[in-house]
Amino acid sequence: MIKVGIVGGTGYTGVELLRLLAQHPEVQIVTITSRGDAGTAVASMFPSLRRTLDLKFEDPACADLKSCDVVFFATPNGVAMQQAPALLDAGVRVIDLAADFRIKDVAEWEHWYGMRHASPEWVGKAVYGLPEYARAQIRDARLVANPGCYPTAVQLGFLPLIEAGVVELDHLVADAKSGVSGAGRKAEIPTLFAEASDNFKAYGVPGHRHLPEIRQALAGISSAPVGLTFVPHLTPMIRGIHATLYARVMADADFQALFEKRYQNEPFVDVLPPGSHPDTRSVRAANLCRIAVHRPQGGNVVVVLSVIDNLVKGAAGQAVQNMNIMFGLAETEGLRQLAILP
Amino acid sequence: MIKVGIVGGTGYTGVELLRLLAQHPEVQIVTITSRGDAGTAVASMFPSLRRTLDLKFEDPACADLKSCDVVFFATPNGVAMQQAPALLDAGVRVIDLAADFRIKDVAEWEHWYGMRHASPEWVGKAVYGLPEYARAQIRDARLVANPGCYPTAVQLGFLPLIEAGVVELDHLVADAKSGVSGAGRKAEIPTLFAEASDNFKAYGVPGHRHLPEIRQALAGISSAPVGLTFVPHLTPMIRGIHATLYARVMADADFQALFEKRYQNEPFVDVLPPGSHPDTRSVRAANLCRIAVHRPQGGNVVVVLSVIDNLVKGAAGQAVQNMNIMFGLAETEGLRQLAILP
Amino acid sequence: MIKVGIVGGTGYTGVELLRLLAQHPEVQIVTITSRGDAGTAVASMFPSLRRTLDLKFEDPACADLKSCDVVFFATPNGVAMQQAPALLDAGVRVIDLAADFRIKDVAEWEHWYGMRHASPEWVGKAVYGLPEYARAQIRDARLVANPGCYPTAVQLGFLPLIEAGVVELDHLVADAKSGVSGAGRKAEIPTLFAEASDNFKAYGVPGHRHLPEIRQALAGISSAPVGLTFVPHLTPMIRGIHATLYARVMADADFQALFEKRYQNEPFVDVLPPGSHPDTRSVRAANLCRIAVHRPQGGNVVVVLSVIDNLVKGAAGQAVQNMNIMFGLAETEGLRQLAILP
Amino acid sequence: MIKVGIVGGTGYTGVELLRLLAQHPEVQIVTITSRGDAGTAVASMFPSLRRTLDLKFEDPACADLKSCDVVFFATPNGVAMQQAPALLDAGVRVIDLAADFRIKDVAEWEHWYGMRHASPEWVGKAVYGLPEYARAQIRDARLVANPGCYPTAVQLGFLPLIEAGVVELDHLVADAKSGVSGAGRKAEIPTLFAEASDNFKAYGVPGHRHLPEIRQALAGISSAPVGLTFVPHLTPMIRGIHATLYARVMADADFQALFEKRYQNEPFVDVLPPGSHPDTRSVRAANLCRIAVHRPQGGNVVVVLSVIDNLVKGAAGQAVQNMNIMFGLAETEGLRQLAILP
Repeated sequence: MIKVGIVGGTGYTGVELLRLLAQHPEVQIVTITSRGDAGTAVASMFPSLRRTLDLKFEDPACADLKSCDVVFFATPNGVAMQQAPALLDAGVRVIDLAADFRIKDVAEWEHWYGMRHASPEWVGKAVYGLPEYARAQIRDARLVANPGCYPTAVQLGFLPLIEAGVVELDHLVADAKSGVSGAGRKAEIPTLFAEASDNFKAYGVPGHRHLPEIRQALAGISSAPVGLTFVPHLTPMIRGIHATLYARVMADADFQALFEKRYQNEPFVDVLPPGSHPDTRSVRAANLCRIAVHRPQGGNVVVVLSVIDNLVKGAAGQAVQNMNIMFGLAETEGLRQLAILP
Repeated sequence: MIKVGIVGGTGYTGVELLRLLAQHPEVQIVTITSRGDAGTAVASMFPSLRRTLDLKFEDPACADLKSCDVVFFATPNGVAMQQAPALLDAGVRVIDLAADFRIKDVAEWEHWYGMRHASPEWVGKAVYGLPEYARAQIRDARLVANPGCYPTAVQLGFLPLIEAGVVELDHLVADAKSGVSGAGRKAEIPTLFAEASDNFKAYGVPGHRHLPEIRQALAGISSAPVGLTFVPHLTPMIRGIHATLYARVMADADFQALFEKRYQNEPFVDVLPPGSHPDTRSVRAANLCRIAVHRPQGGNVVVVLSVIDNLVKGAAGQAVQNMNIMFGLAETEGLRQLAILP
Repeated sequence: MIKVGIVGGTGYTGVELLRLLAQHPEVQIVTITSRGDAGTAVASMFPSLRRTLDLKFEDPACADLKSCDVVFFATPNGVAMQQAPALLDAGVRVIDLAADFRIKDVAEWEHWYGMRHASPEWVGKAVYGLPEYARAQIRDARLVANPGCYPTAVQLGFLPLIEAGVVELDHLVADAKSGVSGAGRKAEIPTLFAEASDNFKAYGVPGHRHLPEIRQALAGISSAPVGLTFVPHLTPMIRGIHATLYARVMADADFQALFEKRYQNEPFVDVLPPGSHPDTRSVRAANLCRIAVHRPQGGNVVVVLSVIDNLVKGAAGQAVQNMNIMFGLAETEGLRQLAILP
Repeated sequence: MIKVGIVGGTGYTGVELLRLLAQHPEVQIVTITSRGDAGTAVASMFPSLRRTLDLKFEDPACADLKSCDVVFFATPNGVAMQQAPALLDAGVRVIDLAADFRIKDVAEWEHWYGMRHASPEWVGKAVYGLPEYARAQIRDARLVANPGCYPTAVQLGFLPLIEAGVVELDHLVADAKSGVSGAGRKAEIPTLFAEASDNFKAYGVPGHRHLPEIRQALAGISSAPVGLTFVPHLTPMIRGIHATLYARVMADADFQALFEKRYQNEPFVDVLPPGSHPDTRSVRAANLCRIAVHRPQGGNVVVVLSVIDNLVKGAAGQAVQNMNIMFGLAETEGLRQLAILP
């Protein structure tokens, strides 16, 4: 049994992580911490966990995180960079679901996140945990930077095209739509039901924090800079991301075959038959990315549709997938649950 | 491994049954039939099942249902009464998720369902499958009539009060609210998104088919006729039933203790602490009924709040629970998945 | 032109009041105040008002409220009782959309609202502004206490039955469901989209503030105390209240005719044909209460279904209706807009 | 008073047209026809119209359409081309809300709509009714082809850029999202609440019927062919379209000023301040297009966000706007109602 600690855990990625880990056959949740809610029973905050998870939030100062095999940070940005180094030094492996270790260029990170990085020395050692691209490095990683939700959907959609060198890199467009849980469990007016329901809007068009993360990843794949326009939108559903990706064709190819071949051994990427349009609900609560590839009217644009559950393949599920890889378990352990439809 | 057949299965209870059975460790789905969709891959109709369920709908005439240990009918009302007898005679056990065998008074059934009953001789032999009330009979049943969704939520809420004889039986009120999946996967205007979203309404106030079913069950518990007013409503969510139950107090009692004691050994009924208000989402996709009991201002009315997922504890999950009981498995086998929240 | 001032107005009843008043042909909005948002253009907070309403929120200390003919308070409870007396003394008429002047028994008000009343002398002089019951008094009122949203829907549903003396008064049940805008435009976790969407729950079962308001009103109609159980619920829609009312029949009557006669001259109460089930969307954005009456299976219970838009007939629209009456305008002036469907 | 007839009117554009026309001060609705629902009171199908609209659907064969000044076709594609010519020949002016007369190239129309055109001689005479582009021709038009919903949002967003010649025309991308009412009031499984709620998906990526309509319009503006990729999506809201438009900058310009200048006198196009993100709800139930222009990070891509209510500016409202122009009324007559928010 892997001894697991969770720092944070009162947000949506936290409760999703708890749901997955509580049902994982090889995991024992040793402790979960929350400064603000120490002493509260986890199941009284999240009644979905009643009668299964019998833990209380512990004060971070008292929690025995150092005896864990792995600690997940499900905290706001800026916490893991403070607390992870001591755990890492004590030999604990760490998976950070926030953004602290995702961007290799510390100055760029500080620009986009508006704070000073507290442990730049660990940024270089962190492995960016997209298993479909970096499985080998994840295996031995001490510190995994779990990818963002939008970056996961966008990267998995562009990956085969960029690796194959068949699209122009200077004018990629990623038009992405997210369910409201992506904004987190924070008391704010714009994500109230009466504001976000029966409404659709773009946000962050001048620049969203996931832009440099995606750009870094795509540039890494292509070994060249990429020109990317990224526009996120808020759509009135709880979970789910739908990324609609546009690229100009540079070299002719059988795109369907390209995607099928690239992902043929991937347990958590499902390439749909030609002509398909994936529903976000087809991955609801499942650790899965479903992808369809189109070339409308045989023209010079390829359109990729990529859907994930932002809380699972876009956060907690991918974190568990990374843990499975790091500890030599079957990659699908604890992650085989089917999507909930309807 | 229990060999399972499914008749029907293109509706919402069907896909939910498939989700649960496909993940059940002791079950092998042998065949699933559909007259209209024979030859279609199940996963092409329900993409949530892709890569897990590799079956096609079979023509009912060709399907080898008689070699199954148990056959589930996830069909419209009136089908099981035609086809189940031949299977039962062949020694196959049957669980009917529709209403054909729920009402013992055949004339009353024919009145409410507007058709002639095709196998009245089996009505008396059928066991009404509410495990919390009839577990012993279910064990040996050849034919189980799986309760309706509203009846499950209402019965579990009234059961302890009626068994204890502490409320007046002549003026019970059940005000119930259901998600739209309760109306089934049928192309009809009133359940279109643009009709049912951002809207709330009652329906069937003059008389809903679940009224006689609930009345029969409550009368069975009390061994006396009951006066029940039942008003169902449609609420803009996909899954979930919330029953708000009102009864006049006849004899003083500690209602909280009464409920806790009655359900203390039940794996799928969760009595919440005093003062609670259960969310339907706290049971989303889980086989569970959560209940809270109130006595507002210490007055002479007891209010019970009872929530289930209409497709799970209100249909497919309860059917699997019944199967587990019938075949001597752990009652929770294949049904331990946590609710999906948010 | 009636010179109108608004105190508050950054919440949902505020923006709805602005929508109605900005389109009212006999109204000039002179000033709108907000302590927190003074200086902000109203249309930058509520873009729906862009290009029609060219006002800024003013500091309450500077606003010239005393030159207004009427001032609406669209503030949290406890504000109007502080600020209205000075305006009233200056001859300004006041309509309070909050609860400060609704309950005649000051001690009971203080019990339910948890604060000391600042102007108990005005409580007795205030007129409870349900036009269908108190039109004559409203005409001459200096201070109108605009009814709550639940109380409006419940009173209009019970009114004809109680006036006619045909139901038992000791066991009335009001099971009410509200859209999420009823909780106001406040940053709170329970009303986030990811919490309130795809979910249904009761709240306030031990006691909701609208209970004493409804009880007082019904007792006023019947000139006798009433036994009322009131359970509010939150339903995942933006606007709308659906009250389902249950009463035991004491004297036989043609309930349909009773309702039709009682409301035959009311411009804003619509009694539906026998057998109807009103949708909340049939009154969306309209100042209207639609009602259907049922007597299920001809039994001893009468069921009334009453729907309103909580922000219109349940708040801002009714306030404008009261203003029209107070100033001798056609009661329907500015309130004839049709419901938005779908 | 303009005597108006409506052919069709049982769908969502129909009921919206009825809502607007019933409140239009210069209009008298003379007749509304429906083959399937002749004899039914309009208000019994659409209870939102009760007590305002006292008409029954008439049999098209009996209806006196020829005495009308103008007839609106709110029918499925292929009806107006059959019935409009006789009315036009009788001197009645016609506004077709369907697609029959939108595409000038009859062969292309027949290709996309899969039927033979019944009155190709009228195609050339029809005026494509986008007032912001073709106001002068609309004034004298006998037959107006009312634009589609997506085409309206996309054209108004691209129009200033193309007229000014500042973007590359060979790689325009229009990523559009529509509420579910855009699919019409038809009993179909994919638009059921339980299918379309809490879900997001693209559709028609290989080719949507609005593509040739948009392409024709943009080519008309630019007097050159355009390369356009158009991907529509279904988003879980009732009303609203959000078009996110991408174009490569060819010539530097102050895009904000360009848009403000182009639309400065337009009553129904609202250019938002720099940095804005329009909500679809900010135009809910209003005849309005709100637009924001961005140039992310000052790069070589301009992003335009354009929102409309698909049933108003995208259908019925624009049709009334066209009628106002055709009959010399104030263009805003009957169309000044503010958006419904929340």
